[in-house]
This record gives sequence, structure tokens and C-alpha cells, in this order.
Amino acid sequence: NIRNLAMEKVAGTVHFPCRYAQNGCGALLLHTEKADHEDACDCRPYFCPCPGTNCKWQGSLEQVMPHLLVNHKSITTLQGEDIVFLATDINLPGAVDWVMMQSCFGHHFMLVLEKQEKNGEEKFFAIVQLIGSRKQTLQFAYRLELNGNRRRLIWEATPISIHDGVSSAILNSDCLFFDTSTAKLFSENGNLGINVTISMVCVK
Amino acid sequence: NIRNLAMEKVAGTVHFPCRYAQNGCGALLLHTEKADHEDACDCRPYFCPCPGTNCKWQGSLEQVMPHLLVNHKSITTLQGEDIVFLATDINLPGAVDWVMMQSCFGHHFMLVLEKQEKNGEEKFFAIVQLIGSRKQTLQFAYRLELNGNRRRLIWEATPISIHDGVSSAILNSDCLFFDTSTAKLFSENGNLGINVTISMVCVK
Ligand SMILES: [Zn+2]
Ligand SMILES: [Zn+2]
Ligand SMILES: [Zn+2]
Ligand SMILES: [Zn+2]
Repeated sequence: NIRNLAMEKVAGTVHFPCRYAQNGCGALLLHTEKADHEDACDCRPYFCPCPGTNCKWQGSLEQVMPHLLVNHKSITTLQGEDIVFLATDINLPGAVDWVMMQSCFGHHFMLVLEKQEKNGEEKFFAIVQLIGSRKQTLQFAYRLELNGNRRRLIWEATPISIHDGVSSAILNSDCLFFDTSTAKLFSENGNLGINVTISMVCVK
Repeated sequence: NIRNLAMEKVAGTVHFPCRYAQNGCGALLLHTEKADHEDACDCRPYFCPCPGTNCKWQGSLEQVMPHLLVNHKSITTLQGEDIVFLATDINLPGAVDWVMMQSCFGHHFMLVLEKQEKNGEEKFFAIVQLIGSRKQTLQFAYRLELNGNRRRLIWEATPISIHDGVSSAILNSDCLFFDTSTAKLFSENGNLGINVTISMVCVK
């Protein structure tokens, strides 16, 4: 286990190009900086943000909306900062995704409600992702609200960037998370209305 | 399967005393009304509202607070409509209950955070119960709020009466419900602070 100090010294001063150089990134990085940069690099391709599809599309941020409009025509879009995301037939068995687009402040947001089944229990996860970069998400906050008879459940957070995707947030319950019993408290005839409000926040 | 219409007619007009008559209830009820009345009867004894104890105490509503003060001395009480319920060591394994009292508007409320373990998953349930009757709960609303870094989770509802107890509400997730991942997002050093706000509502 002898460390090669000479090699380490060299590697500590050598600069490597970003792996997305061919997509236009001009960054030159120390090997210690490389992974973090590439994870956040604006030239890293964006994947299709639709959950529950097998769409393998990838491209630049500018190409995402055109891709959605052409290849995922069935997704409804609502205009405005305050809308209702209506998920129908939430009692359908198995894993299901509900998806809607919301446009406001000159940006597009994808609303996702995902139902998973695990250990015979159903779990719901609702989240908002910005069609934009991680940096752009900091300008926004979203609020998801379920309203029932003398009951209210609210989740407020920063939108996820589609560059990160919703899966790790869902895995960490870093979203509005509820179970079937809660869904029953707030749904009517198997339909669940989620009030979605997007707002701009002061970036410090 | 011949119905005894004569007997049914008699039973439909006979009035029975409430089963809590010896506790002071003077109601006389048709057999069709009996179960509903007894479920809501003010003379039905109250059980000890402390979760996770084996306390078998029961008595009248007026005797509940004296019982708690004498037999459950270790429960902290905070004054005010807006307090912080601090649950320490939420990572302790197994089923755990955290309990606190909050006094405001001339009433006493018991705050409960319960951790359950099922299928290897930990679930948290937070709820507020009023030391009072089901009817009295309608005067109040409570709000439980978890605050984290750019995240907030809020549950608002009517308090449960200790006459009903918290177990069926917890069973139905009719309370603030979250999992270990969410708890991690909002806790610091294993301690979780829940902002509790009690308010009075207009009874229509
Ligand atoms: Zn780069
Ligand atoms: Zn696609
Ligand atoms: Zn009675
Ligand atoms: Zn007791």
C-alpha cells in the first residue's frame, strides 16, 4: 500500500477536459474537481423527464420542451402559478404515474404524482420539476396542497431540476409523500385534486 | 327466515336506558339509536390518554387532568398557542412514543408523536388530542409544521377527542404521517422539532 507521491503530485496539478467537452464545455479540471463539475455541468445531456415511460431521449435543455411537445403530446398543460393537478382513478392497482405541465413566470414545470407498491402497501409521491438547470431552480418554490374535510396537508420545497430527475428525491421521500389511507381522506370518487402553487423567491 | 313483525314493532317503540345510566346519563333510547348514543355519550368513561403506557385508568373528563398530574408527572407542559414539540433521539430503534402537554385557550392538549415499525420500515405519526369531549374539539384547529432547509411539511386538522383516542386516527393516517427519510430531512442530531399551533375556529 505504498502511495506514489510523485504521481499524486503530478495529478494534483494536471488539468483534464470535462467529459462533455464535445457538447461545448470548455472547463479544464483537476481530477479532484472533475466528478463534481461533471455532475453539475450545463453541457451534460438532459434526459427525457417523463416518469414511467421507456423514452430514451436525451439532448440539450433547449430541446426538452420541443421533445415533450412532439413525443409526449398527451400531457396536459395549464397556464398560471396556481392550478389544480387532478389525478384520476388513483385506486388503479400497481405502479402508476400521473403527469401534467404547468407554465408560469416564463418557465415550464412538470408535475408528477407517482404511485408505488411495496410490501403490499401503496405509497404516493408528488413532486414538481423545473424544465431548467439546477441553478435556475433556486429562483422558485412550489407548494402542493391537499384539502379535505377539516384537514389539510401541505408540502413546500424548491423544485427539482430535470437535470437531477425525480427518482432520488422520491427514494428519499424528499417530496409530498402519503399513503393510501391519506389519499382516501382527500380524494373524491377516486380522483385526487392537488393544488399546485409556484412562486418566485428572492435569491440571496 | 320469517320475521317476527309483532316483536319488531314492539322493539321499535320501546325505550332502553343508556348503558352509562349509573354514571349519570338519563337518556332513554330506541334500540336503533342506542349504539350511536353510547359511542358519543358524555357519561361514557374516559380512558387514560397516554399512548404506549399500560395505564388502565378510567374516569370522568374532570378527573383526567388530575390523573395525568399525579400518575404521569414526567410529561412536560408548555403554555401558549404556538410552541415547539421537541422529540429527542428519534432514531432510537423500535416503537417509541413522545408525549407533551400544551395549554392554551383554557384547555389542555396532548401532543403525541408515535413511531411504529412495520415490514422493516419505520413510520412516524404526529397528532394532537384535546382533553375534552368530541363536541369541544370542533372549536379548535391544530397545525403541525416541520421546517427544514428549503422544505416545509404542514398538517392541519381538528384535534381528536381523548374520548376517541389516537389509535384509529393513526391507523387511518389521519394525522401528520411521515417516514424515516422525511424525518432525516427535518431533524438535527437525531432531534425533531415540530411547531405546534392551536387556534380557535368559528363553529358554524
Ligand atoms: Zn463541463
Ligand atoms: Zn421522452
Ligand atoms: Zn348516555
Ligand atoms: Zn394514566
